[in-house]
Amino acid sequence: MQITADQVKQLRDKTGAGMMECKKALAEAGGDSDKAVDILRKAGAAKAEKRGERSASEGRVDAYIHPGNRVGVLVEVNCETDFVGRNEEFAVLVREIAMQVAAAGAEYVRREEVPAERVAKEREIFAAQLANEGKPANIIDKILVGKVDKFYSEVCLLEQPYIKDDKKKVSDLVTEFAAKSGENVVVRRFTRYRLGAE
Amino acid sequence: MQITADQVKQLRDKTGAGMMECKKALAEAGGDSDKAVDILRKAGAAKAEKRGERSASEGRVDAYIHPGNRVGVLVEVNCETDFVGRNEEFAVLVREIAMQVAAAGAEYVRREEVPAERVAKEREIFAAQLANEGKPANIIDKILVGKVDKFYSEVCLLEQPYIKDDKKKVSDLVTEFAAKSGENVVVRRFTRYRLGAE
Repeated sequence: MQITADQVKQLRDKTGAGMMECKKALAEAGGDSDKAVDILRKAGAAKAEKRGERSASEGRVDAYIHPGNRVGVLVEVNCETDFVGRNEEFAVLVREIAMQVAAAGAEYVRREEVPAERVAKEREIFAAQLANEGKPANIIDKILVGKVDKFYSEVCLLEQPYIKDDKKKVSDLVTEFAAKSGENVVVRRFTRYRLGAE
Repeated sequence: MQITADQVKQLRDKTGAGMMECKKALAEAGGDSDKAVDILRKAGAAKAEKRGERSASEGRVDAYIHPGNRVGVLVEVNCETDFVGRNEEFAVLVREIAMQVAAAGAEYVRREEVPAERVAKEREIFAAQLANEGKPANIIDKILVGKVDKFYSEVCLLEQPYIKDDKKKVSDLVTEFAAKSGENVVVRRFTRYRLGAE
């Protein structure tokens, strides 16, 4: 299978990956450039997870105010360099995250931030419901894992389905951009106000 | 002194006050419309303070993001009716408050929100400084009152000098709009993010 310089260049422009990486991915994909993108993204995503420990102190603060000014969100997303922080695609990512919080009303960024008591209380309620339904104890434990995961996916921003494409989680958006930019990207915090609410 | 219907109309347009109030204010001001505005504002401000107990659950959530996206502020300001909440001048007030917080970095809305321990600690530091300067104890107490007031005017939004006119406090902006609109207006809360900071 012959890979042309032109194919490699197009793939580089699209993904920002190195020349040799692109050549290898195209060969692996049998010349199919869409497949090659997937291969690079998977490799990049794997790298992005390793990058998790590098410090991310640059980034962007942004807000989204829902039309009518009754709901508003302030968000901070960090990356590693000012260069990526000023990148247009990064700005779009941050804005999407702010809109997501406005629309879907997450309460925490990630499950580690949910207070243990709150999780315990949810688990208790679910367990009582299942017991009422007459489910046997050994099955309840299994169902509970799923119920608690569902709870996390409602209150934790990163685990929520993305409002514009529910086949993705919000964390996928972040990981994809991290892979593309080659930087550790961290949603650090958000605040959501709803007029007159707590 | 003759007050014309035209003068009354102009004053009403300017202040939104009632016809009889405007006529009385103009008479009291000897026909000077600027003075009449002052008289109405003082009367209105007095009313606004009485209104303080009426419920303010309408209003506006807005944000101000400083150019460069390194500092951002989310703010909620309440009024009594949706009508005032959708008023253009109210929108301007809310935006000014968000800009003030971005620029001058208040930590609390009002002094009642400052934790007692924090005030006690500030007072202690000031007292130690004054004692070091050899000030006698009976004078230290008097100076302390001023020092603590100064501290409040730095950390409390409503007591800060307005960034665009330091002869005014931020609370004056709020009171002026309350007087003009005839509604109780309350800065309810704000959040300020600075990139990478706590």
